[in-house]
Amino acid sequence: MEHYQVILAYDGTEFRGFQLQARGRTVQGVVEQALRQVGWQEEHILAAGRTDTGVHATGQVIAFDLAWKHSLSDLCCALNASLPADVVVRTVRVAPQGFHPRRHARSRCYRYSIYFQKERDPLRERYAWRVWPTLDISALHLAAQALVGRHDFRAFGSPPRPESSTVRTVFRAHWEQDESGVTFEIAADAFLYHMVRRIVALQVMIGQGRCLLSALHEYLALQADPLLVQYLAPAHGLVLTEVIYPQDMVFIGE
Amino acid sequence: MEHYQVILAYDGTEFRGFQLQARGRTVQGVVEQALRQVGWQEEHILAAGRTDTGVHATGQVIAFDLAWKHSLSDLCCALNASLPADVVVRTVRVAPQGFHPRRHARSRCYRYSIYFQKERDPLRERYAWRVWPTLDISALHLAAQALVGRHDFRAFGSPPRPESSTVRTVFRAHWEQDESGVTFEIAADAFLYHMVRRIVALQVMIGQGRCLLSALHEYLALQADPLLVQYLAPAHGLVLTEVIYPQDMVFIGE
Repeated sequence: MEHYQVILAYDGTEFRGFQLQARGRTVQGVVEQALRQVGWQEEHILAAGRTDTGVHATGQVIAFDLAWKHSLSDLCCALNASLPADVVVRTVRVAPQGFHPRRHARSRCYRYSIYFQKERDPLRERYAWRVWPTLDISALHLAAQALVGRHDFRAFGSPPRPESSTVRTVFRAHWEQDESGVTFEIAADAFLYHMVRRIVALQVMIGQGRCLLSALHEYLALQADPLLVQYLAPAHGLVLTEVIYPQDMVFIGE
Repeated sequence: MEHYQVILAYDGTEFRGFQLQARGRTVQGVVEQALRQVGWQEEHILAAGRTDTGVHATGQVIAFDLAWKHSLSDLCCALNASLPADVVVRTVRVAPQGFHPRRHARSRCYRYSIYFQKERDPLRERYAWRVWPTLDISALHLAAQALVGRHDFRAFGSPPRPESSTVRTVFRAHWEQDESGVTFEIAADAFLYHMVRRIVALQVMIGQGRCLLSALHEYLALQADPLLVQYLAPAHGLVLTEVIYPQDMVFIGE
């Protein structure tokens, strides 16, 4: 019996989020089903984060125990053969005993894609938020800078348990411009529920001149009676891209 | 009553091709339904080309007659309000009387996207063909060059009617490389049935060293008893990007 770490990618469109639900198709549900095909007998897998309905991933991390006699790449192939087209196992590695994908994570990275167009674009809609009119990129850069560092993000989301801390450290936050839109990348030690989507929505308001940059500073300075940022960027623009673990944690594999 | 030209974009995944069928959801079907909502009473629209099941478009062109009292942008909005999420009207313009989107087309442009990866990628699969191992880009450039010009493409597809010509003129054919794959663009006066997908598949064989460049020259030199190229690149990597009309044909609109 070994403890395994697996990196998953999925298109969230047809899922009711990552986490197993009484009803509805979930990523956890289809992955656990595929694992049972290769002899897995535990009750549940562990995961780095619970992505919402419609949110995608290229770097979700899960862990489980399994008795497997063949190679790691055989395990990868066997799982992918059972998984549906919208989920894939990217890598399989042997994890240290006791590895927990959520508890041991030091950083999570998300990407949010926006395209600027008056009319919707059926070929982009699935993975990006359509925004019109276009955004002021210099305002976005200033807003992203303001996010970096250790702040109380209580205005941007609720913590996993009511009593737990809402302080998070943002390591990196920046916007990049391409031909037809912008992409936001953010890395933090952890995120509150809906935090990335509120951060994106507020910055879009600022980039459209519908809200001042000072509003962002005010939300970050809120200490009590938090007024949640009301706007939520749609789920389909968001991708969980990477989860980072301590460098001295050794995973063995490809 | 005016004659209108409309440029459509669609995600072909959930359609059984462009053309109306006795059974199955088609682009023509949903567009004609949306047109009926705004008072259109003809039997059928005219279109530049019939894309296959699964093929996408950003520049399909259709035409129809309609009595419409409001502005062009109102017509655009009214149509988009009735269309499903996977089809959109990009522009509406008034066309010269007698304008026929297929007959008057001087050039059609297609784009084919390929990504290089060992495992499938659920976030790219919908709009690109996964190829592994990677392709020799210099071999692809040579192959694309060989396609340009006036050739008998009978080995690459069948003409609209059995007796019609299989000679076509390719104006432009080139490959571009990006971070994780390649994109092929081709423009020709017209295409035979499945021609782009056979051209892409043969070039991929050449790029993988599984077929010599001379094979492409031989297929282009075939004069009789055509042996069709056996390989067909999958539909989901293909997009009809543009249809070009004579410069002296004046469309009035946005």
